[in-house]
Amino acid sequence: MTVAAPRPLNFSSGPAILPLEVLERAKEALGQLGTPSELGLEGRLSILEISHRSRAFASIHERAIERVHTVLGVPRTHRVLLLQGGASLQFAMVGMNLLEPQRRACFIDTGVWSTKAYKETAHLGPTEIVASSAETRYDRIPAFPEPERYAGASYLHITTNNTIYGTEFAEIPRSEGGGPLVADMSSNIGSRPMALERLGLGYAGAQKNLGPSGLTLVFIEESLLARKPLPNVPTFLHYRSHADNNSLLNTPNTFGILVLDLVLEWMESQGGVAALGERNARKADKLYRVLDESALYRPHAQRGSRSTMNVAWTLAGDTEEERDRRTKAFLAASEANGLSGLKGHRSVGGCRASIYNAFPESGVDTLCEFLREYERTAG
Amino acid sequence: MTVAAPRPLNFSSGPAILPLEVLERAKEALGQLGTPSELGLEGRLSILEISHRSRAFASIHERAIERVHTVLGVPRTHRVLLLQGGASLQFAMVGMNLLEPQRRACFIDTGVWSTKAYKETAHLGPTEIVASSAETRYDRIPAFPEPERYAGASYLHITTNNTIYGTEFAEIPRSEGGGPLVADMSSNIGSRPMALERLGLGYAGAQKNLGPSGLTLVFIEESLLARKPLPNVPTFLHYRSHADNNSLLNTPNTFGILVLDLVLEWMESQGGVAALGERNARKADKLYRVLDESALYRPHAQRGSRSTMNVAWTLAGDTEEERDRRTKAFLAASEANGLSGLKGHRSVGGCRASIYNAFPESGVDTLCEFLREYERTAG
Repeated sequence: MTVAAPRPLNFSSGPAILPLEVLERAKEALGQLGTPSELGLEGRLSILEISHRSRAFASIHERAIERVHTVLGVPRTHRVLLLQGGASLQFAMVGMNLLEPQRRACFIDTGVWSTKAYKETAHLGPTEIVASSAETRYDRIPAFPEPERYAGASYLHITTNNTIYGTEFAEIPRSEGGGPLVADMSSNIGSRPMALERLGLGYAGAQKNLGPSGLTLVFIEESLLARKPLPNVPTFLHYRSHADNNSLLNTPNTFGILVLDLVLEWMESQGGVAALGERNARKADKLYRVLDESALYRPHAQRGSRSTMNVAWTLAGDTEEERDRRTKAFLAASEANGLSGLKGHRSVGGCRASIYNAFPESGVDTLCEFLREYERTAG
Repeated sequence: MTVAAPRPLNFSSGPAILPLEVLERAKEALGQLGTPSELGLEGRLSILEISHRSRAFASIHERAIERVHTVLGVPRTHRVLLLQGGASLQFAMVGMNLLEPQRRACFIDTGVWSTKAYKETAHLGPTEIVASSAETRYDRIPAFPEPERYAGASYLHITTNNTIYGTEFAEIPRSEGGGPLVADMSSNIGSRPMALERLGLGYAGAQKNLGPSGLTLVFIEESLLARKPLPNVPTFLHYRSHADNNSLLNTPNTFGILVLDLVLEWMESQGGVAALGERNARKADKLYRVLDESALYRPHAQRGSRSTMNVAWTLAGDTEEERDRRTKAFLAASEANGLSGLKGHRSVGGCRASIYNAFPESGVDTLCEFLREYERTAG
């Protein structure tokens, strides 16, 4: 490894830390893929140089899709698509493909990301927010609405984890209003076993738990592919086009797909989502315990809605100025101690630690120690 | 370098061969970016792990955009956008953003890629093909239409180079019909000096001359950003949204942008587009000379329309069966001799050598030698 030791602890909300093994293997693939005997001449070229229609890439692509099923647990009733454009393009594509005539799309509002999904859909057809935690500054997941609240909807959309506020659905809910449940899972996919069969469609930008930016995972129930997209939607934005072409309708992000496959393989080696889920719960519990026990730090998310992926807190203070000053001092001290990316999103302020799958438990221990020490000496 | 020598000669039409220096530097960035003193803690993380809002990434991003101006020659009157989704998403976005009420989009039809651009736009509004070389199996660039033929159009769309048929506009034409010229330049951008100021909008998937797949370059004249997109188009698909956010509206393909910057830096080191253009002309001339002098090989593109990037030919034969048999034998022999990716696109058949910027002149010499030798002994 040429990565200098010790590496800074990177709490960035994404693109986020990756396992060193994955980085090392990605580097190898940049030089030269596999062995020529397996892959033909393509085996002696870099992943960046080979055709997306080559034998060498086909095997990487197929393996990644297979692992989305076996490692992430996407059911075989769903088609796996590896696209580009991030969750932001999905905000638009979901409505373009799933809005039905005269039927609205319903949204559970858990903050900035669900609002973006809602607003992009509002350009396309009728939309409705059927539950929201806006009134309490998105410090919780709102109570799941009664079925009559979203009855007859084209679909019901949720954001399973909310990076900015550190809130997370404790489990994937059941839609009982007729329409399928659609979930933006960008920031907690693969973090633990989840009931993905409850989703008609799930999507996730890869850059948190799954790999590099520039790659989007979509999985969609076969039956939903039969829905007729809205008129005036170009075929490139039809899910059906990508499903019919096994995501090779156009040149995909080939390097991103290679790294996705490496990340999924690493997840397997760690014991899969079951073992990762236990570790993630332990990591988050440690951090919330320090925050709950402190007089200086105030966790933003309420119990029962707390994210295991993003832990957000503010610093106590009588005035906004005092809180701001304390936050700035805390962030400067953490940066000086090799703890990077702890600044919270501007809409909550304060601090945030993003501790995705690849973030080591020892790094959480270091942060806990720093939090306690800082409160004792500087707070 | 861990790349095994000798590397196979890869004539793939894209993703295509990259300079070894670029691969080596991309590998370094996967391990660890720059130096900590320049970049802060981020300097000790991999390019795959840092936030797209970090100082380290901002400097890569700004440098890449600056080099698009200075190395590729995109005029300062145009905004540079680094997006995802390939040229295929641009086929849709161009119409969504530039179609004006009651004004059609006009297209010059030079084969599969221009047809795709046309068809995606036809979902959105009125379209018209104003010139075509379909009748001669796209073996040439059709005569540029008279201004009255495309008068009053929202825009006139061309594909500057056609990978499948090996045809290329000898220079960027002038639109004199009022509407701006829009060009898909995916397969010849950066191959020589070009009059890019004649374009209102240009776009290119990066995976041929500019770097890895999963990244799209768009440049658009400032004045065109003022056009009102079609109604019902989500804001993520507005060029204005991306321009207003300097392409950081959502998480971009950060690794792809790093490689783009490395490729542009390499182009600079080679003497820029002027020197590359001379080398590319020499490479293509050598290959066409061998084909023209041969009794076995038949170049597909007519003189005056020949591409310097993709050279397509068929093998002579009295029947289709004979031509097919000869093509198969030729391709098997070339593969056995370390010449990879020479199979032509199914719509033309035969063979194709893609010899983009990074393809070495010595590799073209090897192919020329092989072509002559094969004709003498096996043809």
